[in-house]
Amino acid sequence: MKIENKSMRPIWLDKDSRIVKVIDQRLLPHEFVISDLRSVDDVINAIKEMFVRGAPLVGVAGAYGVYLAVINFDEKTGFDDFLINECNRLKAARPTAVNLSWGVDRVMYELLKITSQPARIDRARDEAANIADEEAENCRRIGENGLPLIDEIWIKKGGETVNILTHCNAGWLACVEYGTATAPIYAAYENDIDIHVWVDETRPLNQGARLTAWELGKHGVKHTVITDNAGGHLMQHGMVDMVIVGTDRTTCTGDVANKIGTYLKALAARDNNIPFYVALPSSTFDWELDDGIRGIPIEERDPDEVRYVQGLDHGSIRSVLIPPASSPAANFAFDVTPARLVTGFITERGICRATKQDIKRLFPEKMIQ
Amino acid sequence: MKIENKSMRPIWLDKDSRIVKVIDQRLLPHEFVISDLRSVDDVINAIKEMFVRGAPLVGVAGAYGVYLAVINFDEKTGFDDFLINECNRLKAARPTAVNLSWGVDRVMYELLKITSQPARIDRARDEAANIADEEAENCRRIGENGLPLIDEIWIKKGGETVNILTHCNAGWLACVEYGTATAPIYAAYENDIDIHVWVDETRPLNQGARLTAWELGKHGVKHTVITDNAGGHLMQHGMVDMVIVGTDRTTCTGDVANKIGTYLKALAARDNNIPFYVALPSSTFDWELDDGIRGIPIEERDPDEVRYVQGLDHGSIRSVLIPPASSPAANFAFDVTPARLVTGFITERGICRATKQDIKRLFPEKMIQ
Repeated sequence: MKIENKSMRPIWLDKDSRIVKVIDQRLLPHEFVISDLRSVDDVINAIKEMFVRGAPLVGVAGAYGVYLAVINFDEKTGFDDFLINECNRLKAARPTAVNLSWGVDRVMYELLKITSQPARIDRARDEAANIADEEAENCRRIGENGLPLIDEIWIKKGGETVNILTHCNAGWLACVEYGTATAPIYAAYENDIDIHVWVDETRPLNQGARLTAWELGKHGVKHTVITDNAGGHLMQHGMVDMVIVGTDRTTCTGDVANKIGTYLKALAARDNNIPFYVALPSSTFDWELDDGIRGIPIEERDPDEVRYVQGLDHGSIRSVLIPPASSPAANFAFDVTPARLVTGFITERGICRATKQDIKRLFPEKMIQ
Repeated sequence: MKIENKSMRPIWLDKDSRIVKVIDQRLLPHEFVISDLRSVDDVINAIKEMFVRGAPLVGVAGAYGVYLAVINFDEKTGFDDFLINECNRLKAARPTAVNLSWGVDRVMYELLKITSQPARIDRARDEAANIADEEAENCRRIGENGLPLIDEIWIKKGGETVNILTHCNAGWLACVEYGTATAPIYAAYENDIDIHVWVDETRPLNQGARLTAWELGKHGVKHTVITDNAGGHLMQHGMVDMVIVGTDRTTCTGDVANKIGTYLKALAARDNNIPFYVALPSSTFDWELDDGIRGIPIEERDPDEVRYVQGLDHGSIRSVLIPPASSPAANFAFDVTPARLVTGFITERGICRATKQDIKRLFPEKMIQ
């Protein structure tokens, strides 16, 4: 995407191929800082501390983490053991998004076949770049495939503004280009559909208010920030035509893990007969899991992310404490929306219903049974 | 309730009967400040700016506002016109909580009968004090009536911790004593039931994280602050036994206006077969309204309450900006939970289902038809 007229992705390899560069998403929208990742530890830290976040981007970051592992291999130990160990460390950085394992494993499996160090380096770099490019292309197709859904509403409304609600940031910052949930939105915008986005602020880390609002604003898409509490009221009063969210892991039966609070919006959408779509590349499907509520590991993060809120005060970023200092907090980072509440999936191969059968129709080669 | 071993209400009349004293709830839990209200304008400002908030307390504040109007009556104009005008100004301070009109009207109707100024002053003071005392007594009874519901769960769980989720602050700060939603919780605590409260932070103004957590902490009740997004996940995983909330206006058919986001919790409770109770004194029923979603006016407040979050930083209270400075926000303060999602009402007269018929059973003299 373009930032101040410069084409940019949220992750890229520096010219000398020794440093992975990322936009530090903790500081947006108030500061725009590029961070250098030089080692597996740097990548793990960037994923854990959420310099990089969003399922597809975390997958790409993991892939580049494997590349950094390879270029830092000192040849004193056995390569395969070293590689497997570094990959396990990377995959453990965050538990919920399946893309992380997927991206790491994909580069790892390529490397296990190769014995020369220069060839490993080339292969790792190319495979990480392939993953990034493929995810960008997948997102472009998600936009293409989701566009008719918005267009249909627009026509039905006789050209009145189409109001879409989204939760968290499943934008290009979370992916590589276009985003997942935002890809159909950007496509609609490019096609001159009158579109407006309700942006859930998405506590605790406010990825909606900070990142989605920033992205949409930079792109010129009309949007309004709302609290996470507001969506139900808007839906009751006809102010939402469609919900589109991303996902961190979706089972082959259609259960959707996404940012905490997504389930509440899916319930409200169902209660008000509003279509609830999940946009995802195939890398976000977990082909081995049947039951999302029991099977998907839900990350618990530092309670201080709930207790403190970060924002801008007189030009500098500060954190302020909300509850009494003595009150404990809990911080579950994701929830699972059961398949029964999902109208459909928007994928790079088209749209399907949230059933094993219909997912299999689009991805027959991926389904294990 | 007791603050540092001193009995206290959130509103009271000063010794010389010229000043209404209130706890400034905007600054809690980080600063404990008492504000002086000397005029109708002061009361209107305190209600609008939410020094005082919570339906029952706003009713009491309105009643004391009428008292301040009376003591400031200059006898140059006709009393009745003056009084009606001042009462209309008070009632317009906030639109959603019906208690405000109820409290103001109750004092006003008493005064219209009286012609001597000293008698008016006495009557206004006494009636405002009566309302405060009655609301305190109503809340005590709500606690008494709600206690068996919690006790039953506790017995069913074999003495394991009972987990109650609440949204916003319907505690003694929102009322006069005990609170509405918190009254059964305090009663359970006094009766040695092992109880734990999930406190929704309640964006945008964080009345849960700031006020409910503070109240519960002062009282010694175990609690955990969570984001408004978290409740659905907790309910899916058996971590919530019951939801109790307050309300700002409930129709005679059982539709419940309460802090924005309540509807989402009601949906999640229903989806997980968890009882969802609303605790209220009869002053919060709107006996004239049948349809909450169409009929209850929903206040829209300053979008900056969404864009900025206030908290403590190095000992002083600051506001930090979350989204990009150029992103607009919307701030709907309440939503309406349809009666079909409410398990029951806990009132001063007992428990009833959320139907016109069952509400009428408890309050036959109030129902208009």
